[in-house]
Amino acid sequence: MSVNPDRFLSDLHTLRQFGASGIGKGVVRPAYSKPDIEAREWLRGRMEEVGLTTHYDPMGNLFGLAEGTSLLLGSHSDSQPEGGWLDGSLGVIAALEVARASREAGGPPISVVSFQDEEGRFGVTTGSTVWSGGLNLEQADELTDRDGVTLAEARGTMAHLIGDWVDADRFTGFIEMHIEQGPWLDQAGEAIGVVSDIVGIRDMRITFDGQQNHAGTTPMHLRRDAFQGLAEFNALINERFRNVVTPQTVWTIGHVSLHPDAHSIVPGKTVFSMQWRDGDADRLRRMEEIIRATAQEVSEARELGLEIGPMLGLEPVTMDENLRTALKLSAELVVPGRWREMPSGALHDATNVARLMPVAMLFVPSIDGISHAFEEDTDERDLVAGLQVLAGAVASLQGQN
Amino acid sequence: MSVNPDRFLSDLHTLRQFGASGIGKGVVRPAYSKPDIEAREWLRGRMEEVGLTTHYDPMGNLFGLAEGTSLLLGSHSDSQPEGGWLDGSLGVIAALEVARASREAGGPPISVVSFQDEEGRFGVTTGSTVWSGGLNLEQADELTDRDGVTLAEARGTMAHLIGDWVDADRFTGFIEMHIEQGPWLDQAGEAIGVVSDIVGIRDMRITFDGQQNHAGTTPMHLRRDAFQGLAEFNALINERFRNVVTPQTVWTIGHVSLHPDAHSIVPGKTVFSMQWRDGDADRLRRMEEIIRATAQEVSEARELGLEIGPMLGLEPVTMDENLRTALKLSAELVVPGRWREMPSGALHDATNVARLMPVAMLFVPSIDGISHAFEEDTDERDLVAGLQVLAGAVASLQGQN
Repeated sequence: MSVNPDRFLSDLHTLRQFGASGIGKGVVRPAYSKPDIEAREWLRGRMEEVGLTTHYDPMGNLFGLAEGTSLLLGSHSDSQPEGGWLDGSLGVIAALEVARASREAGGPPISVVSFQDEEGRFGVTTGSTVWSGGLNLEQADELTDRDGVTLAEARGTMAHLIGDWVDADRFTGFIEMHIEQGPWLDQAGEAIGVVSDIVGIRDMRITFDGQQNHAGTTPMHLRRDAFQGLAEFNALINERFRNVVTPQTVWTIGHVSLHPDAHSIVPGKTVFSMQWRDGDADRLRRMEEIIRATAQEVSEARELGLEIGPMLGLEPVTMDENLRTALKLSAELVVPGRWREMPSGALHDATNVARLMPVAMLFVPSIDGISHAFEEDTDERDLVAGLQVLAGAVASLQGQN
Repeated sequence: MSVNPDRFLSDLHTLRQFGASGIGKGVVRPAYSKPDIEAREWLRGRMEEVGLTTHYDPMGNLFGLAEGTSLLLGSHSDSQPEGGWLDGSLGVIAALEVARASREAGGPPISVVSFQDEEGRFGVTTGSTVWSGGLNLEQADELTDRDGVTLAEARGTMAHLIGDWVDADRFTGFIEMHIEQGPWLDQAGEAIGVVSDIVGIRDMRITFDGQQNHAGTTPMHLRRDAFQGLAEFNALINERFRNVVTPQTVWTIGHVSLHPDAHSIVPGKTVFSMQWRDGDADRLRRMEEIIRATAQEVSEARELGLEIGPMLGLEPVTMDENLRTALKLSAELVVPGRWREMPSGALHDATNVARLMPVAMLFVPSIDGISHAFEEDTDERDLVAGLQVLAGAVASLQGQN
């Protein structure tokens, strides 16, 4: 098959108009928002032009289905609250172009998917987690976003579009193309990364409950200041992780809310996020023990109520040998000597889909390693190289379908 | 004169219906909000029933003016985002009742005031600061609240009500009755505190600017995490203040915002409040030096941009000897042996009014020392004792007017 780079890039630029931030190529397209749903409807139209049968499942995952048994390609089209134009979108539009080119070439049959809420408005890769049975819909519906909106309420905004679940048995495997989101390919001047495995992730919300009080009349020794509890928790885990982590391990407190959040009031309550990632499931577990023990210790020492929310997370996943080999051979043909095998520090829908079928991933460089930000970008030559590596791998797998 | 406790308590309970939180006796009546303006209009009606001439100045400070030269009593009727029913309101309603009783007794002439934005939506005691010349209106109009609303915009909501400034020369002095907002009177089982002096306060907003990035793919050693900067700043000042502060000194980080505030993103930016209070102006200055130096140091060590907003604040103020003596004599008559002299750790409008005339304050107990919270409360017998001490002091000052 022969893919069409112009058609591919044109679709990619069209997609970023949905929820365009007006700052660089940035997009604001969180899951279930108006621009997210409008983008999915536009994608659905493109899929149908390619001759695919389109279908939304109960989570709002959008499928473009080829007849019979097929390989599944894609990623997600929702974005972070402040996201880039390529994260997720690249894999979806590349899948669309490969399906189109493959159709024109008389096969192989290629299906396309755009998963919902990969960016975790309601947790972590929520759409593919529920589709793959990692969480049942009833439990998922109780998840809330930062503003207290439930997933059930958010799904309701797509109620007129959604149908039943798609049976995974119709797919022989899943390949997701994505930006690296890290600095390594860009720093090395390489064009392609073939993913060896995806790191595991843990994510939870922690609450410290103290005593809201006057910031002028409450002596320091009588305070139960929730923010001071958070600051001490942060310092202690940073110290205690030292003996456990590797240079690849990461942990982040990315969300913090204080209550009532006023200059003249001792914070009575804080809710914050704790997320950590590593390729080793045992290390993730040891970090969890440190986090729970430290939160407990701070809560007792400072007389703060402690609540630890449900832990969402995914185990480390190794990519399928067969699909991965096809990607490596294709990469060596398209960009000889300018590709590498590498782990993925970022979480992806492929992690969930691995519960259902063989999966593989390929990366293109992220300029300066920046993503989840309006500045996120990739040289268009590298985007096209990625498309060609994906198409080549799909073609070489044809005989096996 | 003889005050009427029932009339006083009834007015006090009526006032808390404006912006009632529905939780206990709590109120949500921030400056210039709809319930704040409605409460002021109700107060204006009550003042006029007492025969006072009512007037809003350009800040929205509400005056009920007696003819000729008079003593000024009052406080403020705006509340914290989550406030109690007594903070500010008590002093205003007590002033109203004393003015009414004094009118009925044929004097002395008493004027009443409810200052605007004492709780600092736009800074610190904004209404009395501007009236007393601590800040000119043009500068004040540029102040913004946490949502970016300017004071000019907020004042606009009262444009149809406000007139010109009130000349302070018509007032012989100012007495403000208030809840203690601290634990001391309640713990000692005492009814009245006569204030010796009001501590000084400093308040500023600090911003650390880092690099927003992906929380899975950005190695810890390459991060410029704004929240980690804040946490380190907090730990360092807590350590460095040790050699400077006394048990009466307090400091608070009460407001924190992260940007973009998402689980999976390294925080690129944080804006937080830094407030500190002490009775000694020199100590306040030494703390400011530590804060500025530490913020600078953290910003350089972590490659974070640093922005320190304008510093709002007030100097420590000693209460007027003459007014204070009148309060002490009255307290000994009303609650013999159950009162004390004490400093105010909380800031009050009296601090600003001291620029214009002699000022004094009296406190009633706060149950469990709680204020700036829905649970804030005081035994009604103590509220009435406060009213009687105030009325007694006013009567004893009559000869001097």
